[in-house]
Amino acid sequence: MATPVISELTATQAASKIADGLISAVEMTQSCLDRIEATEEAVRAFAHLDPEFALSQARDADNWRRSGRPIGPLHGVPVAVKDIIDTADFPTECGTGFLAGRRPRSDAAVVARLRAAGAVIIGKSVTTEFAYFHPGKTRNPHDLERTPGGSSSGSAAAVAAAMVPVAIGSQTNGSIIRPASFCGVYGMKPSHGLVSRAGVLPLSRSLDHVGPFARSLDDIALMLDVLAGHDPEDPDTRPMAARNFRQIANEEFGLAPRFAFVKTPHWDRMDADAREAFEGLAEELGGDCFTYDLPERYASGWTAHRAIMAVEMAHNLGKLADAGGEKISGQFRDLMAEGRKVSATHYLAAQAEARGMREALEDLFQQECTAIITPATRGVAPKGLDATGDPALCSLWSLTGLPAISLPLMTGESGLPLGVQLIGAAGDDARLLRTAKWLVSRLAG
Amino acid sequence: MATPVISELTATQAASKIADGLISAVEMTQSCLDRIEATEEAVRAFAHLDPEFALSQARDADNWRRSGRPIGPLHGVPVAVKDIIDTADFPTECGTGFLAGRRPRSDAAVVARLRAAGAVIIGKSVTTEFAYFHPGKTRNPHDLERTPGGSSSGSAAAVAAAMVPVAIGSQTNGSIIRPASFCGVYGMKPSHGLVSRAGVLPLSRSLDHVGPFARSLDDIALMLDVLAGHDPEDPDTRPMAARNFRQIANEEFGLAPRFAFVKTPHWDRMDADAREAFEGLAEELGGDCFTYDLPERYASGWTAHRAIMAVEMAHNLGKLADAGGEKISGQFRDLMAEGRKVSATHYLAAQAEARGMREALEDLFQQECTAIITPATRGVAPKGLDATGDPALCSLWSLTGLPAISLPLMTGESGLPLGVQLIGAAGDDARLLRTAKWLVSRLAG
Repeated sequence: MATPVISELTATQAASKIADGLISAVEMTQSCLDRIEATEEAVRAFAHLDPEFALSQARDADNWRRSGRPIGPLHGVPVAVKDIIDTADFPTECGTGFLAGRRPRSDAAVVARLRAAGAVIIGKSVTTEFAYFHPGKTRNPHDLERTPGGSSSGSAAAVAAAMVPVAIGSQTNGSIIRPASFCGVYGMKPSHGLVSRAGVLPLSRSLDHVGPFARSLDDIALMLDVLAGHDPEDPDTRPMAARNFRQIANEEFGLAPRFAFVKTPHWDRMDADAREAFEGLAEELGGDCFTYDLPERYASGWTAHRAIMAVEMAHNLGKLADAGGEKISGQFRDLMAEGRKVSATHYLAAQAEARGMREALEDLFQQECTAIITPATRGVAPKGLDATGDPALCSLWSLTGLPAISLPLMTGESGLPLGVQLIGAAGDDARLLRTAKWLVSRLAG
Repeated sequence: MATPVISELTATQAASKIADGLISAVEMTQSCLDRIEATEEAVRAFAHLDPEFALSQARDADNWRRSGRPIGPLHGVPVAVKDIIDTADFPTECGTGFLAGRRPRSDAAVVARLRAAGAVIIGKSVTTEFAYFHPGKTRNPHDLERTPGGSSSGSAAAVAAAMVPVAIGSQTNGSIIRPASFCGVYGMKPSHGLVSRAGVLPLSRSLDHVGPFARSLDDIALMLDVLAGHDPEDPDTRPMAARNFRQIANEEFGLAPRFAFVKTPHWDRMDADAREAFEGLAEELGGDCFTYDLPERYASGWTAHRAIMAVEMAHNLGKLADAGGEKISGQFRDLMAEGRKVSATHYLAAQAEARGMREALEDLFQQECTAIITPATRGVAPKGLDATGDPALCSLWSLTGLPAISLPLMTGESGLPLGVQLIGAAGDDARLLRTAKWLVSRLAG
């Protein structure tokens, strides 16, 4: 048997080998850099990369470990960070030429947490313009003629291409779940308020989420252990007792979980291969799964999401977009204009609708199911690089702030990856991970 | 010396005498009812009063005490409740004929807390229409031709006329502080989020506060002890360790407090007698007080307050006002129209300004002063009953959510009362009470 390529290790495996002295942080980082060198020209996952600086972080990590001091759970493990997330050591350009060369004074809260856990920040991954729709340069590693999805395009593609074991991205509509589905990796949008957004380009306080990409569920849990926690700089995070996501994710289920299969109003617009795949999946789950038709009250979820996103993005980014003039895409300027037209009472009504849906979903999870199972995307990654695909299957869960995860469990047309999306109860991210583990082993078995 | 009239006891005195068996809850309640009978025709403080029901609550309180069971801090003490605060046993008509006969199914959170503390809910006190500007029937006990202020008109007047020792009201702009100043009683708007608003007619989530009126500072502290606390039904309250407001309010100051005398941009529009009184007060405080000119950033506070209030009230009450048609005052319908015209981005900008002011004030309290001292009103209660006076001296503190208290320490034209308003750091209500105690004794000494 050939020795596995080091860069293909998961973060959990790499961290364990580094802790045990079986490989060094420099070896791990160099292996990732080699992989990047071999594939970056095709995939284009990085907005900024500085191999020498990455290696110097890795050397520091090795020296630290050799000195016998305690190490964190990501010690020596390379991580890619979406380029809307501030880093003191790299530019953060938010996918727009208008901010070319912008260099933040300090790290975002999540970057500080990664560093405290010992991670090597290997580089900044490509985002669409302001994490909205206008695409960056990244291509799908499974088919270079197809979009990787967006807006966290580079983070998903870099993990899929084994350039890094893990990466972080963000989601306001479908920006983690959609690229995870298209690129065939795990991607998680944690509960709203679980992970701090301080130092991340604010699009929409109500809808913004930061979350991880990985090639294993254990790595997703590991990343939540590192990223989750209260931060006074993000008023939507709350003080809470520390949870051990890895431990809870790996506990046995007493009773099998019960899945609500939700087709959403977008079912008829899905690709035929994806519809068939999901109907087959529901059938395979048999008694563990029931079809749940979303009641009428959710029908306004998509327009409510759109109104809140347009308003809050115009609030946060309108002046910047005005200043950018022609450097800003027409698509983005249209969104600013749309947001500015919405009345405040319409905005508050949309917020109240979202609250109502959140409460109704809470009842669903209390009374009827462990998780919702639903498509992550309308189908496999569409052809072309001028758009990033449809986020409609994600909007409702971004609106309601529930934890969502995309599992690379299926394939569609041409054998391309297709994600299964699981949704859990608000704040119950650990149980969602455990449910995902159960599903993965059930479908493998 | 004549025996003091029972109804003139403070709540603290009455509760203590009832606990010791020196007077009964029935005697206390009957004395208040006698006082109401003697003065209500002139003052018109009550929207609903049911003497028999009040006495039956008092009898229950006496029986409870005689059975030897533990009693609460307001056991047997009559309290009046503003008529926008839900009560299961009385109608709650919110000052509008359109809701005549409305009878809520359950008590507001603060009413439940009063009952749990043993209080006798003696009746519902008059509010302006929907706690906005259109006046109710109440008159100022100090001069029946003058307004008692609003919107908590009946609560302030009932306490001033010794119909009850304490009452609760609410403030979105100046609805506690203004009537307290005009009626010569203590009135407190606690920090935003200290007292639950569940079951209180929602005007504006960002600006609504519930708070007490009393004839002594100890009673204000006692009421906070009863009213404050986390309530999952009010998302702006937070879990917190229980505080003992009475104890902290009565602790000695190590160092004398330091007051920032704030004139606000409305100083030039104040009555001459009030201006003189305040300049005299600042002089008397000498080195304990410095004049603080609000920096430019606060200039937009009044328009920000107006926009947020108009928008959130249109959101909460617009449909109701539409349904009410001619039963709703023109003034109120104009506000609904105004709120509906505001854009969502303008609304969010106003919220961001408010946040900025809140943070700047936090720095002021950290670095420069113990409390702000500032007029509660432009002068004494104006003549006439067709308006309730100007809330402008209160708007900034409602906007920023800081605790505010009006102290009946001064008199203006014709010997009418004039309130001194103290503002404290957000969440530091107990220290504000202690500072108020210091000021009262300093000015008495």
